[in-house]
Amino acid sequence: MSGQNPMLQPKSQFRSRDKVRSLSEEDLGLAPERVSDDDIEDLSDGTGFKQVDIERWVRSINRKKQAIFYGPPGTGKTHMAERVADILIKGGDGVIEIIQLHSSYSYEDFVQGIRPVSNDSDELRYPVVQGRFLDFCDTAREKKGPCVLILDEINRADLSAIFGELMHLIEYREKSMKLAQKDVEGDDTSDETFNIPDNVYLLGTMNTADRSIALVDFALRRRFAFLPLWPEMNVLRNYHEDTGYDVSGLIDVVNQINDKIGDRNFHLGITYFLKEDLHEHIEDIWKLEVEPYLEEYFFDNPQKAEQFAWDAIESRVIP
Amino acid sequence: MSGQNPMLQPKSQFRSRDKVRSLSEEDLGLAPERVSDDDIEDLSDGTGFKQVDIERWVRSINRKKQAIFYGPPGTGKTHMAERVADILIKGGDGVIEIIQLHSSYSYEDFVQGIRPVSNDSDELRYPVVQGRFLDFCDTAREKKGPCVLILDEINRADLSAIFGELMHLIEYREKSMKLAQKDVEGDDTSDETFNIPDNVYLLGTMNTADRSIALVDFALRRRFAFLPLWPEMNVLRNYHEDTGYDVSGLIDVVNQINDKIGDRNFHLGITYFLKEDLHEHIEDIWKLEVEPYLEEYFFDNPQKAEQFAWDAIESRVIP
Amino acid sequence: MSGQNPMLQPKSQFRSRDKVRSLSEEDLGLAPERVSDDDIEDLSDGTGFKQVDIERWVRSINRKKQAIFYGPPGTGKTHMAERVADILIKGGDGVIEIIQLHSSYSYEDFVQGIRPVSNDSDELRYPVVQGRFLDFCDTAREKKGPCVLILDEINRADLSAIFGELMHLIEYREKSMKLAQKDVEGDDTSDETFNIPDNVYLLGTMNTADRSIALVDFALRRRFAFLPLWPEMNVLRNYHEDTGYDVSGLIDVVNQINDKIGDRNFHLGITYFLKEDLHEHIEDIWKLEVEPYLEEYFFDNPQKAEQFAWDAIESRVIP
Amino acid sequence: MSGQNPMLQPKSQFRSRDKVRSLSEEDLGLAPERVSDDDIEDLSDGTGFKQVDIERWVRSINRKKQAIFYGPPGTGKTHMAERVADILIKGGDGVIEIIQLHSSYSYEDFVQGIRPVSNDSDELRYPVVQGRFLDFCDTAREKKGPCVLILDEINRADLSAIFGELMHLIEYREKSMKLAQKDVEGDDTSDETFNIPDNVYLLGTMNTADRSIALVDFALRRRFAFLPLWPEMNVLRNYHEDTGYDVSGLIDVVNQINDKIGDRNFHLGITYFLKEDLHEHIEDIWKLEVEPYLEEYFFDNPQKAEQFAWDAIESRVIP
Amino acid sequence: MSGQNPMLQPKSQFRSRDKVRSLSEEDLGLAPERVSDDDIEDLSDGTGFKQVDIERWVRSINRKKQAIFYGPPGTGKTHMAERVADILIKGGDGVIEIIQLHSSYSYEDFVQGIRPVSNDSDELRYPVVQGRFLDFCDTAREKKGPCVLILDEINRADLSAIFGELMHLIEYREKSMKLAQKDVEGDDTSDETFNIPDNVYLLGTMNTADRSIALVDFALRRRFAFLPLWPEMNVLRNYHEDTGYDVSGLIDVVNQINDKIGDRNFHLGITYFLKEDLHEHIEDIWKLEVEPYLEEYFFDNPQKAEQFAWDAIESRVIP
Amino acid sequence: MSGQNPMLQPKSQFRSRDKVRSLSEEDLGLAPERVSDDDIEDLSDGTGFKQVDIERWVRSINRKKQAIFYGPPGTGKTHMAERVADILIKGGDGVIEIIQLHSSYSYEDFVQGIRPVSNDSDELRYPVVQGRFLDFCDTAREKKGPCVLILDEINRADLSAIFGELMHLIEYREKSMKLAQKDVEGDDTSDETFNIPDNVYLLGTMNTADRSIALVDFALRRRFAFLPLWPEMNVLRNYHEDTGYDVSGLIDVVNQINDKIGDRNFHLGITYFLKEDLHEHIEDIWKLEVEPYLEEYFFDNPQKAEQFAWDAIESRVIP
Repeated sequence: MSGQNPMLQPKSQFRSRDKVRSLSEEDLGLAPERVSDDDIEDLSDGTGFKQVDIERWVRSINRKKQAIFYGPPGTGKTHMAERVADILIKGGDGVIEIIQLHSSYSYEDFVQGIRPVSNDSDELRYPVVQGRFLDFCDTAREKKGPCVLILDEINRADLSAIFGELMHLIEYREKSMKLAQKDVEGDDTSDETFNIPDNVYLLGTMNTADRSIALVDFALRRRFAFLPLWPEMNVLRNYHEDTGYDVSGLIDVVNQINDKIGDRNFHLGITYFLKEDLHEHIEDIWKLEVEPYLEEYFFDNPQKAEQFAWDAIESRVIP
Repeated sequence: MSGQNPMLQPKSQFRSRDKVRSLSEEDLGLAPERVSDDDIEDLSDGTGFKQVDIERWVRSINRKKQAIFYGPPGTGKTHMAERVADILIKGGDGVIEIIQLHSSYSYEDFVQGIRPVSNDSDELRYPVVQGRFLDFCDTAREKKGPCVLILDEINRADLSAIFGELMHLIEYREKSMKLAQKDVEGDDTSDETFNIPDNVYLLGTMNTADRSIALVDFALRRRFAFLPLWPEMNVLRNYHEDTGYDVSGLIDVVNQINDKIGDRNFHLGITYFLKEDLHEHIEDIWKLEVEPYLEEYFFDNPQKAEQFAWDAIESRVIP
Repeated sequence: MSGQNPMLQPKSQFRSRDKVRSLSEEDLGLAPERVSDDDIEDLSDGTGFKQVDIERWVRSINRKKQAIFYGPPGTGKTHMAERVADILIKGGDGVIEIIQLHSSYSYEDFVQGIRPVSNDSDELRYPVVQGRFLDFCDTAREKKGPCVLILDEINRADLSAIFGELMHLIEYREKSMKLAQKDVEGDDTSDETFNIPDNVYLLGTMNTADRSIALVDFALRRRFAFLPLWPEMNVLRNYHEDTGYDVSGLIDVVNQINDKIGDRNFHLGITYFLKEDLHEHIEDIWKLEVEPYLEEYFFDNPQKAEQFAWDAIESRVIP
Repeated sequence: MSGQNPMLQPKSQFRSRDKVRSLSEEDLGLAPERVSDDDIEDLSDGTGFKQVDIERWVRSINRKKQAIFYGPPGTGKTHMAERVADILIKGGDGVIEIIQLHSSYSYEDFVQGIRPVSNDSDELRYPVVQGRFLDFCDTAREKKGPCVLILDEINRADLSAIFGELMHLIEYREKSMKLAQKDVEGDDTSDETFNIPDNVYLLGTMNTADRSIALVDFALRRRFAFLPLWPEMNVLRNYHEDTGYDVSGLIDVVNQINDKIGDRNFHLGITYFLKEDLHEHIEDIWKLEVEPYLEEYFFDNPQKAEQFAWDAIESRVIP
Repeated sequence: MSGQNPMLQPKSQFRSRDKVRSLSEEDLGLAPERVSDDDIEDLSDGTGFKQVDIERWVRSINRKKQAIFYGPPGTGKTHMAERVADILIKGGDGVIEIIQLHSSYSYEDFVQGIRPVSNDSDELRYPVVQGRFLDFCDTAREKKGPCVLILDEINRADLSAIFGELMHLIEYREKSMKLAQKDVEGDDTSDETFNIPDNVYLLGTMNTADRSIALVDFALRRRFAFLPLWPEMNVLRNYHEDTGYDVSGLIDVVNQINDKIGDRNFHLGITYFLKEDLHEHIEDIWKLEVEPYLEEYFFDNPQKAEQFAWDAIESRVIP
Repeated sequence: MSGQNPMLQPKSQFRSRDKVRSLSEEDLGLAPERVSDDDIEDLSDGTGFKQVDIERWVRSINRKKQAIFYGPPGTGKTHMAERVADILIKGGDGVIEIIQLHSSYSYEDFVQGIRPVSNDSDELRYPVVQGRFLDFCDTAREKKGPCVLILDEINRADLSAIFGELMHLIEYREKSMKLAQKDVEGDDTSDETFNIPDNVYLLGTMNTADRSIALVDFALRRRFAFLPLWPEMNVLRNYHEDTGYDVSGLIDVVNQINDKIGDRNFHLGITYFLKEDLHEHIEDIWKLEVEPYLEEYFFDNPQKAEQFAWDAIESRVIP
């Protein structure tokens, strides 16, 4: 039994008036044991992330239903979210969808809103039109297996505004609620309630270097498991095993840079260097991507950036 | 006799020109004695909160008609609001509805607003359409017993803007008032007044850790009883009596964390640990939920968060 | 003779081109002597406010036509406004209406604005629709006696924006003015002017504890008499004469709290304690209403609030 | 010859391509000598303002075409503007109109804007509808004599936004200009230009105590003559000559208050005391109008306000 | 050859795919030698500005195509822009148009925007309607000679927002670009590009005393020549040669004031004193225009303003 | 192989469910070797920029698909973007388009948005209309060779808001995504996904002197290669080889100015001086363009600007 707020369950029952029955995990086949150890091992081998970490991520996603991969840019958050989603839906009939939230995304686009629509006889109507997330829930309702919605860079949007009632509903999957705007077109002055199906999983990615763009408040945070993705040097080593590029010097320099940066939310990512022909491109990448990043980060202290200019570190990163 | 502003009642009468008669409590069966001691005892047993506190909450809700459960995230505010609502409507014909306010919620959605609507013959009209709260009042008017509207996380919205005239009307149930926008469609250029039925109860939850989101002003505060829900270790003990997990070590650590946090509005909640199979999940919960919470809270002082990292406290919380 | 800006009257006449004749007070029966001493004495007896103060309020309202009751929350401002309004209209044919201004109230709602309206043949038109205040003036024009509009918690709205031209017209009742938006629907491209009838009285209430919500500028202030309502301990004494609750200890504590608060705009109000069965509720009221108020006010200095926690003062307030 | 920007006139001519001919003052009868000395003397006698000041005001208004009476609230700015307007149009066929600008007033209301309008056959059109100022100019174009538009409390609006092109056109009356929005309804996709007739006078009043509401920028200031109206004790003396109230003590106290206030933009006005039956009302006025003004002004320094509470000054102001 | 960004011209050619051919200066007759020395001499004589400065202005306008006269209010910027425009179009078939930008001016008004328009059969359409600037370009395309658009007080508007694509196009006259909004009415879902004709000249005036209203960013600045117009005492001397008013004392005082002001962006302008009958008006001008300006500027330091009150300087400025 | 986020490629495959096939570089002919060394040499000769830098830029653009030329105004960013675009499309069938972003540009204009459109029978519909970028992608889909979209002065717009989903899609060209607003007109309540074709290249220019206008966040930065364009004195030397103007003195002065400025994001650009007849114009350019730039930059420190006034440096810059 793993409802989201089971504060009183061992001794007392949830009230029975909730019309939306909570499907058992067995019905849906969501139990953690569904995710095979082989899949996790494969993912660990393929990426360089430790198996124990990936296991914890999958287990926690199964437990919470929503999780956020967080870390500085360039640590593979989006890719990892997709790979984990692959594992989650494997063997079921579920789907994966990815949405990029952004500052022009509104509650109306994500949940629902009033929109002018002309019908067949070209008459204007103003129905409540459901947004991307409600559409996704409709899709999920027709599936038995887990369905994963990936929200990329959730920190680009005012999450609290866009989510609206979902704030409540993602935690209480067994409940349904009336949303802000009601549909008054036609006869039904609809009074429908909405709930989020139990087989909907939300995986967000959150870039910690731009955290000032939109803060996620504490109450919303509690709804998600937070899966940290710091720059993992093992990923670099793993990747370049096949390319023959000796990354030990490069790793030393990146580690030194990240020491200097200090706050790990701003650490230099490692995806810059996941390039088969890195030998050919390392100088360009450093000069036109790494240096501008450091210039920007050390804006008030240009000397720090200069310490790691190409000329200063070239001999160390080229094998 | 328990009108809301009875300043002059013992010596003088309210004026009689108010057309909306104030129903007596007997008519409605709202008297506190209606709530049975058994129900309160059951709730105390089921949750671990003290019976004396629950009694005070119920008594004050009956007296004020509106109350707010407040405290940091994860103390069971929403759940408690629902349980208390259950008790309040028990034995009557009343209903419970829950609404999640959020920053996209407007006065128009909650109270009333002008909306384009196409009628049967597909002609556009712009009537004043009533919002969720007015709909709820209509429902309540058809009931005799208490009807409870739960407003979850009221601090997510600009309450003062959304409430509008309710600010006045929730206090003076016997009065009616014209609302901001009048309906000029059709013949009636309506001049109707609105009042809030006496059997409408409002229960809000307010998360104090995100108080900066929207402040509740003093005048609005006076309309509500404020029911504090700080992390109650007894709830943990009570819950795990049945699971066999010895929570004494965990409680020590959580208490120590909350000491370090200081401001109790930000204390670590206890619902993280209301999990039947806690033994299996405690490490995940700590690493992916508690640690990120502490990292965020001690953002400017990372060492404080590190003191309570899993590796540092594991031996103490695992029985 | 009591026009509002009579700067030059003794020596010079107002110009005669103003078409709207200023009705004499005799016509309207507005002269202060109309308000009987008995009514004022009754109100004083009923409330505990001094007769001399109430006389001054009524006299000043008669002189200025608009006044604002101001003070911290819970001092009886709204109730007092209603009682004084009762006295003002007594014996005449006038009416009282109460409006709660709020931050969603606009100039369009209060004065006038363009609104889409569909006529009988379902064609859209965009007439200028008059708002609540203009409607009230229409009502007043059909009466001989004083008509009182109560604006509750005027500080919740941006008064200067909502009032618009009323700023000028409330002072110069004998003048009329074109308003911002003209009606261009139909033939008349109307050029009508508007004035405020002489028998319209405005009584506002202003909560000084939330003054930061919306400041009232100096020029607008000059149009109103300001009637202070600080927590009046006499009201408490007066009220509980009949209930038998000895309030002397309570009054001592409240006075001590208000000393500690200092700024009287934030003083603790007394309506918390106007409760027939206070003995039964005083603990609840203190813990769930007074304590949260003090916690909020002394947010940066929690010790001050703790000094007045229930446990610390119980022995003093319970008779 | 008195064009507004005659920088080069003595030696060079204005270009002749301006189609709107500048009417000579003789045509319009605007020459200062038109204003008779008798009128000015009467106004001085009636108000207590010095004749030399009034002469200067009238002369400057004739020279600049637009002027602003400025000073703290309660010095008679609006009344003076009306009286001066009376003098200006005397003997001609001109009109006076008064408009109260406010923060809901827009460029669209004052100059012009696109508005939905339904025509006779109930079809919607979106013509450019001209605002109050353009209407006034149309009226003035049909008159020979000066027409005065009084803008009361211009500081309540964002003057720079509302004025739009008038900023330029009030200075260069002989020029015409295309306004921001063009009319594209019908055939004419109008390309009309607009100018301000030479016989239009603008008299504003500006309350200096609320200057923070909306600042008037330097460039706009240069278009106006600024006519200061500080509290003039002579007005008090003059007024009460007939009432028999000896104002010398009152004047002493007001002067002392204004010394304490210091910044004369916030000086206490004198219209508070222009009351025939002042003896009867002085205490009310002081307690409910003057004291609240001082409390507000000395918000951070309550002792200063207390120095001038009624009890402290009563003996001095009552003759 | 004088294209705007000729970085590579001597060695390389611009690409030939630009469809809009750049007209040669000979075709248009724009070469500086077209402006006759006589015209410049006349303008210098007529205004008092040095011939060498005027020559530089004209030469730079011919080179850059856009220029801004800048300086404090009252230095003759607008008038100078008009006079220079006169010289520029002389002998050609070009036109001059003047537009006052302001804060209600939008990109839609100036460049283009979607607008509801009803056609002959009274059906609504939402075409993209071109704004004032695009209209002006259409006019200019039908002319051979220079056409000058004067933008008065450009600092009143958010120039960067209003200009939109013009930012790019004013510099690269030979290029064309698609604008933000496309026209989707009718069949043509238009994909038209727009360019600014080579014979369009932009002359702005920018008041430096109100610079805080809207800053012009560096990138936009680079597109304009900046022509400074500080208060030129020679203009005063020149003007009053014919009036007989000896301005030497006045000039001394103004210079002393401007020394005290310091920042020349706020210097007192000289157009205040360009008045044929200055002797008659100097006192009024000083008291009602100069003194208020100084009071405003020296707001925090009233003594500085008082130093230059009329009484203190009268003897010096009256010849 | 050069996908954008190939973190796991050597060991694992991307999932195959993406319907949009990623075209191979051979199909499109995008391989870096396509850009001939001759073209790069020509560009270097024509501009004065070093061949090795241009090679790096082109190589990096081919690798990243999107790049930003950044530097202070007047360093030739826009021109360089166009020249590099010329090289990129050479020999293919691709196109170049240039768009000026600005603060009135919205997500709706750039990506897609709901717009009222009247169809043939003049009935209103509200379809989702695609913006400039989606149109460009449609064009590119019909070509085989690279298509370059130049975004001039991207810092003038809120890039993060305008880009919306492109943030994700520019990095993952092989993926498609549903955009925020869905098309509900007609039958298809479209659920279409969108992707960015692999042959679309984005070249932005970013002016670093106005960086405060809109910051580009770190996550967006990672999608672009950053190509620095500081003022390159070699460009000046190169250009004036043919004109005969000895620029050595000028270069000394400009270098000295830029030393004084310090922050190279604000360095004085060199395009001011790319003028064939510089000898004739150098004084005008200096006085009316360079001096105002320095006055603005050294606003708080006017003496610094004066050091480089024309009179102080004339002898050094004139050969």
